[in-house]
Amino acid sequence: MTASATTASATDRVYNFSAGPAVLPESVLREVQEEMMCLPGAGASLLEISHRDKLFIEILQDAESTLRSLLGISDDYSVMFMQGGATLQFSAVAANLLRGTGKKAEYLLTGSWGKKAIEEAKKEGNVGVLFDAAKTNYDRLPTASDYSCPDDAAYLYYCSNETIQGVQFASEPECPDSVPLVSDASSDFLCRPLPIDRYGLVYACAQKNAGPAGVTVVVMRKDLIDIADENIPGYLHYKNHHENESEWNTPPTFAIYVLGKVARWLRDDIGGLANMEDINRQKSESLYKIIDESNGFYRGHAQTDCRSLMNVTFNLPSEELTTKFVAEAGSHRLAALKGHRSVGGIRASIYNAMPREGVEALGNFMTDFASRNG
Amino acid sequence: MTASATTASATDRVYNFSAGPAVLPESVLREVQEEMMCLPGAGASLLEISHRDKLFIEILQDAESTLRSLLGISDDYSVMFMQGGATLQFSAVAANLLRGTGKKAEYLLTGSWGKKAIEEAKKEGNVGVLFDAAKTNYDRLPTASDYSCPDDAAYLYYCSNETIQGVQFASEPECPDSVPLVSDASSDFLCRPLPIDRYGLVYACAQKNAGPAGVTVVVMRKDLIDIADENIPGYLHYKNHHENESEWNTPPTFAIYVLGKVARWLRDDIGGLANMEDINRQKSESLYKIIDESNGFYRGHAQTDCRSLMNVTFNLPSEELTTKFVAEAGSHRLAALKGHRSVGGIRASIYNAMPREGVEALGNFMTDFASRNG
Repeated sequence: MTASATTASATDRVYNFSAGPAVLPESVLREVQEEMMCLPGAGASLLEISHRDKLFIEILQDAESTLRSLLGISDDYSVMFMQGGATLQFSAVAANLLRGTGKKAEYLLTGSWGKKAIEEAKKEGNVGVLFDAAKTNYDRLPTASDYSCPDDAAYLYYCSNETIQGVQFASEPECPDSVPLVSDASSDFLCRPLPIDRYGLVYACAQKNAGPAGVTVVVMRKDLIDIADENIPGYLHYKNHHENESEWNTPPTFAIYVLGKVARWLRDDIGGLANMEDINRQKSESLYKIIDESNGFYRGHAQTDCRSLMNVTFNLPSEELTTKFVAEAGSHRLAALKGHRSVGGIRASIYNAMPREGVEALGNFMTDFASRNG
Repeated sequence: MTASATTASATDRVYNFSAGPAVLPESVLREVQEEMMCLPGAGASLLEISHRDKLFIEILQDAESTLRSLLGISDDYSVMFMQGGATLQFSAVAANLLRGTGKKAEYLLTGSWGKKAIEEAKKEGNVGVLFDAAKTNYDRLPTASDYSCPDDAAYLYYCSNETIQGVQFASEPECPDSVPLVSDASSDFLCRPLPIDRYGLVYACAQKNAGPAGVTVVVMRKDLIDIADENIPGYLHYKNHHENESEWNTPPTFAIYVLGKVARWLRDDIGGLANMEDINRQKSESLYKIIDESNGFYRGHAQTDCRSLMNVTFNLPSEELTTKFVAEAGSHRLAALKGHRSVGGIRASIYNAMPREGVEALGNFMTDFASRNG
């Protein structure tokens, strides 16, 4: 990490299946690199200019408007950029929408992140768990007949894609019109179109599909913003961020800048979220096909009807073969494939910026590995 | 901000007196630029690798150990990297050290940031203000005879350098041994040696002297970490960050990476904090001398005995001349000199990374401007 370290070139890049922080579009990294010493017009790096500088304000507003156009977000919703990741949102959601309401917040528990969200919510008020997939190690999702959400719930919360388990809701879960639907969309945000008007609040930390670690996007129906108790910690109060257009305090300027470039890449290079979804379906289906046709050599963790477009999780016949798979993949420049310890096996995270070529290379390796070891 | 934008070169850089985010060492920016596409050994950008990747863990640990060596931080203290800026710390300090204790937290109110800290603390418990400089628009600091801190206070809080007003404590304020001293050192952290063992807790957002926006360093005496109420929001609970070595959730990896490089620059290129203080004294004294010898053309905001090494604040004879000063300075490649609206006039922020040449150029311009307009 010193100035004397050998400079690695772009040709040293591997296919990086990290679950997050994760692969970014190469064109975005190149722009960031070109502008690092001097942002055009600024006379300084983006890292060095004030968040109140008009050049940064333009970058912030451009990031917001690109997100609005990609997702079709209406003026009924606020778009905020915050710090603290999904973890801070676990508290913020409950502090704003549950504390002091006398109501109960309802949760669908479908994986590791939902579990953490519930722990934080319990500090703020009464919490119900309408569905709990713990007993099958979070390999499935609820259907409408599996639960019933009361009409007077403070909100209904779910995690649209559980990164660790690789389960993803195909569409919004059933929710009464009177109840704000809240989603932790951290790991599938921007992977496909999202009907924002079905939601009270959607948030996503950026480091999967949207940018680097350090910024979280919050999309919130405006009528919900001002109901919170005034005594919740100021940084957690959405009202402060909304009213000050994400500049209540110094925002994470660099992460917002990169996020804006990723959003532009999605709009201009990919052609929008419907196109992105097509590509993501092709990429994930090609891997699931190899799993399904491996005669049981590869066993998917998630039930087939809730497989994730983003995180393909599967097991091999033995711990030994899993270790061998990861090591051999590494020598083929296929990196960061080890599954999370709670699920084991392999996790191939194939977010938006993972090129088709990377997925093809992984698919070819999987087929070859199975034929040699099956 | 698009790929087609003209690439500005390093020679387009100006002297940037922004109050924060602020100037960074050019050598650090160059390293970041060189490594942007591919961190050596990673096969991917730093922005793309997991926070659990051993390469990032090394970067995190190196940042911490460099800070420990620069500041002489003993094992009695934890060093944590958090998100949310000083603003989140306003709540975290009080949530951890005041809520539920039945004690009173005491504050020295010496500027805009202290005021905001008090507002947040009041949500968590009983708050006293031992000294309030509001009536003189925060142009001065208390001496030991101006206040007396009770022996049983939850803590004594102060802001070591008020960026907006340009007032800086020359040394730690008087505080009983039984009371943890807490400092918001956001805008003078690393500008000089700091006797950490005098403190219960010191925090600093990075975007002045230590790195880009998006990370806050917290140095906390370990015996204070585990006294907080278990029901405070998880992200605010220092225990979570301490026990998980700043990886309770995904940390702001890029900001920590840059901060580590800035800390190494301070250690290896500058030669440590005593040298840095010497340089900072020379830089600031050269500007204060011009102010003092301008026959009243320039009037410093801060009383002379509490002038800041970091933020040199002064007024001109009229609003019109102030506007002219800022505009002409801009055409001399001296940028971001406009004072904060609450104080007016000029603010020259000359943080660690502002080269002597920049201060000299500003000094020459000030002398010339005064002679032409005085």
